[in-house]
This record gives sequence, structure tokens and C-alpha cells, in this order.
Amino acid sequence: MSLYSEILEQPERIHSLLSSQRKAVEKIAAALRERDVQYVFLAARGTSDNAGRYANYLLGALNGLPLALATPSLFTYYKQPPKLKNALVIGISQSGQSPEIVSVLEEGRRQNCLTLAITNDAKSPLAKAADFLLDIQAGKEKAVAATKTYTTELMCIAMLSTALGGSKTRWNELAEIPRWMKSVLRHDSLIAQSAERYRYMDQTVVLGRGFNYATAFEWALKLKELAYVKAEPYSSADFQHGPIAMLESGFPVLAVAPKGRVFESMVAMLKRLRREISAELVVISNDKKALSLASLPLTIPADVPEWLSPLICILPAQMFAYHLTQAKGFNTERPRSIRKVTETK
Amino acid sequence: MSLYSEILEQPERIHSLLSSQRKAVEKIAAALRERDVQYVFLAARGTSDNAGRYANYLLGALNGLPLALATPSLFTYYKQPPKLKNALVIGISQSGQSPEIVSVLEEGRRQNCLTLAITNDAKSPLAKAADFLLDIQAGKEKAVAATKTYTTELMCIAMLSTALGGSKTRWNELAEIPRWMKSVLRHDSLIAQSAERYRYMDQTVVLGRGFNYATAFEWALKLKELAYVKAEPYSSADFQHGPIAMLESGFPVLAVAPKGRVFESMVAMLKRLRREISAELVVISNDKKALSLASLPLTIPADVPEWLSPLICILPAQMFAYHLTQAKGFNTERPRSIRKVTETK
Repeated sequence: MSLYSEILEQPERIHSLLSSQRKAVEKIAAALRERDVQYVFLAARGTSDNAGRYANYLLGALNGLPLALATPSLFTYYKQPPKLKNALVIGISQSGQSPEIVSVLEEGRRQNCLTLAITNDAKSPLAKAADFLLDIQAGKEKAVAATKTYTTELMCIAMLSTALGGSKTRWNELAEIPRWMKSVLRHDSLIAQSAERYRYMDQTVVLGRGFNYATAFEWALKLKELAYVKAEPYSSADFQHGPIAMLESGFPVLAVAPKGRVFESMVAMLKRLRREISAELVVISNDKKALSLASLPLTIPADVPEWLSPLICILPAQMFAYHLTQAKGFNTERPRSIRKVTETK
Repeated sequence: MSLYSEILEQPERIHSLLSSQRKAVEKIAAALRERDVQYVFLAARGTSDNAGRYANYLLGALNGLPLALATPSLFTYYKQPPKLKNALVIGISQSGQSPEIVSVLEEGRRQNCLTLAITNDAKSPLAKAADFLLDIQAGKEKAVAATKTYTTELMCIAMLSTALGGSKTRWNELAEIPRWMKSVLRHDSLIAQSAERYRYMDQTVVLGRGFNYATAFEWALKLKELAYVKAEPYSSADFQHGPIAMLESGFPVLAVAPKGRVFESMVAMLKRLRREISAELVVISNDKKALSLASLPLTIPADVPEWLSPLICILPAQMFAYHLTQAKGFNTERPRSIRKVTETK
């Protein structure tokens, strides 16, 4: 099974990325410091867009950089791209093939912005369109659903953030990721067993906030692509502004709630869901209080810092989606209706 | 019924807004021209966030302004707001009460940015925190689900865009909106009848692209809040990058597809959904080709220009959600679990 082995490959890929791309991120950071970059303009789709959501929080919180997610149709169908003065333009795409993402980078260059491609193919059109390249070096990803290319994209973003303004402590924390990942992968048989309970779940919502807003989106996407579960991701704040109304008693809610600044607000939401609608909770966390609320607690190591928690939290989410897909009897390698490379304009 | 009468009020509210806020938008546009504003940083939640999605496309396409949707938790929980040099900071909130949206505007002022509040309460904390105010003047909105405050927020954004760089033609088109809205409201009894068919629909996806990406989000939100339907919005491009896999044969798909630059791509998607999964389609459009694909075609006037189509397309969507809520026997005025003012941090 490619999907399964690609999930297991992640600690190794992250480990080698840390040494192989360190120079590249330092070079990009130096170039950024020379220019008056005032914000980031980022284009991506699907899983890579979720990596962009992580960049939104990480570059904002740790580097003071506001980030705008591009609306590619302005560059393609409308042909009215905005003025990108003083922007760093980033395109993220596993294949580097999607014409609309390439369009955004080309326009960035035309407007004399600094441009950066984050891709798994150093010879792709996206890589060629950019001033700088971060090669995620995930190796060929055979399964249609992205796993190792997601975490390597996150790793490139975390390394770039650290090169831009990080301390030695942050570089040391980056080096711990493979160990934390391995520790989570050890829960595989437990997750395989627990997934049985969700054999007939056909809809759910996935909650996350702050850095793990990205994790909620990526977990939901895996469930949709692989297990054909209608899974809608929300920030716990947005969820209270309307959508919470639709949940009936016993509705399954998946939550990403590691320790950190938004933890208390997430726990308050989970308690409310238990109390008001007896929600069935699946919770990824490293806090006992949060895990004790769950029918299915998915544990990550206690010492994972919040800024890197998305790289660790997504692993139990991927394993859950994988085993649920098997429990439902669907094809984990080639989901219906989608292909590995989707070329949208 | 407040909700019903608030839907019907919209042409009148839009009509009076056009004259009453014209001077205010001209003044803001003049102030913006004096400053070197390079992008917009916008904070909002729920329905107002969907108005922000319209601003993203409109200010991008017609005014060349990139737009970043704020991540309020960076200002509240993380207390690490990004550097907002040369940004116009906009907060949108019906009540003007949400502490996190106020936080973003206060931080914008602290960083010497130009700040703008778009709200229905000129005395609210949000209005007080801003340099400039656009009062949407929708009158008290009694129903919990927002309708007239959404279209008046869109109208303020469309007027600001026109004041910033619009021609006389665009001002004339703005003046046509009440007439177009009235023409759509005449289909009310037809929509009431047709909604019966969806009495047992409990999940759906809503597709839109470009300017009407916002409409897809707002339609889905009304269905969730009022009719408790699990409705997930997508751009038709994102939808192809994974989520399409989850649809079974006959799945209901709602689509916003008026004539314009993204029309052909929307129609191609709808045809694919008909062909591959025999999807049940509900389509809002002014094009015969698109309407003919639908089990339930919802017509808007032929001469609505694409840039203003979100103000018109949302009306059949609101009516559909209202009548479906009645068909399902739920409370249209006070949905379960939510309140009119949600104060998230």
C-alpha cells in the first residue's frame, strides 16, 4: 500500500529535509531581509492550500508578516491581477503543474516581486517560474491522497520562518520532529482498531484553531478524499457564528486541541458540545483534560511546542483516515473521481 | 415573520443606502488616495466574513488591491499581530460588538494604518475604534439569521470600490440593484413550492467561483443556520482537488452560476456532475444553458453585470433557505444553539 508506507516515511523525510534545505532557506531569508517585503501573497490548492493556512499563522505570529491567500481566478479567468507591490509571492504545489498557481508566480515576477516555489519537482513549471525554490524532496508520492508532501511542505515553511527570525532553540525544536512523529506512529494498531467504531459515520465536522486551523482542514480533506465522509472544517470561533445550529444529538465532532494559546478556548467548545448535544468526540491532544472528553483520544507527545504541533497532529489524523477507509472497504490508493495531478485554471 | 419581511425589505434598504452613504464612501476614497495603501487587511466572522470574500474579489479585480483575511486569534489569544505597514484595515460586523474584530481595528490604529468599520450600529465599539465608518443602515435585524445586513454590507463594499475607481456606468449599475432584486423576489411562491422537494435533504455542497465564491459561502451558511442542512461551500476549482470524491450518485449540488468570466468553467463542472454522478442540481443563473441542467432552476435577470451579481444571486438563495426551513418545520426566527450577537475572542 503506497498510502500506508508514505505515512510511515514521514519522520525520515523530515529528518533529511532539515539538513538538505537549510542552506536554501537561509539564502531566501537573506534575500528577503534585503527587500522591503511587507506581506506574503500565497497561491495553492487542496492539500497545499492547507499548508498555506499554516504559513498564515506561523509567518504572522513569529515573523510579523501578514499573509493574503491568492484568488487564482483573478489571474486566469478575470485577467485582473491585483498590484503586488512589496509582496513576497509564494506558490505551493506538489506537482508544480497547476497552471493557475504558475500564473500567480509569473505575474509576481512581472511586477518585480520576490517569488518562491515550494514543490516536489525541481524541474516543474512552478519551479521554473520562481526566483527561489524550496524542494520538499518527499520522493515520488504514489497514492493520490497527499500525506508526506503535506508534512514536508509544512517543514519547509517552518524552516523558512526560523531562518527569517528564529533562535537556536527553534532550530533545535525542528530537529525533534522526527522523534515526535515516530512516537505517534507507534499508536497505529490502536488507531486501526478504534477506527472500526466509525465504519458508518458519513458526516462530521472538524474543529481547530490558530496554528491547527490548517490541521482541521487537512484532516477533513483526507476524510473526504479517502473515506468519502462529508467532513467540514471550522475554526471553533467561526463554528459558533452559525454552523453549530446544524448538529443533532450524538453528532461526531473531530477536534485538534494540543496545548497552547488557543487550548482553553478549544476545550470550552468541546465541553459545550458534550453538554448541549452529547457530541461524540475524537480529540487529538497532549493534554489530559482534553483527551478525557473524547470517546476516541488520540495522543501526541507532551513536549511538542504549539508552533510545530501541526506537523505532529496531522499524523494520527492521516492514520485515522487511512484505517477508516479500510474499515469502509474503499480503495486507499485511488479514490474515485480524482487524479494525482489536477490542473485547474 | 421577521426573517421573511427582512428578506423582502432588501430593495428598499439598498435604494436608500445608495444616496445616504455616497458622501461617506467618496470621503474614504479620497483619504485612501492620499495614503500609499498597498493592500487591505479585513477582519470579520460569519455572514460578515462572506461579505469580506466579496471584497476580496471586487477590490482585487476592479481596484487592484490585494486583500488578506485577518486571523483574529493572532491579535487576541496569541497577542502577536503582524506588521500592518501600508494596509487599509477593515472590520465588518453587523452588531459591531465582537471583541476580536474590534481588537484588529485597534491594532491597526496603533500601527498608524487607515481603519474602516462597516457596521449596522454607528455607536458600537467597532465604529468607535475606526477612523472611518460605513453605516449599513439596515434597520434593526430581528431574525437571528442575517439577510438584509449581508446585502447592505455588500452594497457598501461595491460603493467603496466604485468611489475608488469607478465610472459613471458603474454608479448607474448600482442604482439598478433594487429593480433587479424586486424582479427576483417575485419568484417567491415558485420557490416556496419547489422547496418541498428538498424536505428530506440533509446534506449538500454549494459551488461558486470568482465574485460568487462569497454567495456559495453565504447560501451554505443560511442552510446550516436555518434548515440544519450540512451544506459545504466550495470554489469549483478547489472542489476538483479532492472533495468531489465524496459524492454519491444523485447527490444534491447547489450552484451559483450567473453569466461572466467564470461561467464556462462552472458549466463544465455542472455538466461533469450530471454526467458522472447524476447529481441533482439547483442552479442560480441568468443563462439558459446553465438553468437547463437544473432540477430546480432559479432565475435572475439577464442584464445583471457579474460584479454585482452576488447582491442579486443571494436573494433566491435566502428564499430557498427560508422556505426549506418552513418545509422542515423548524423555527425561522430563532435557530437552535445560536444567538444574534456572538462575542468570540
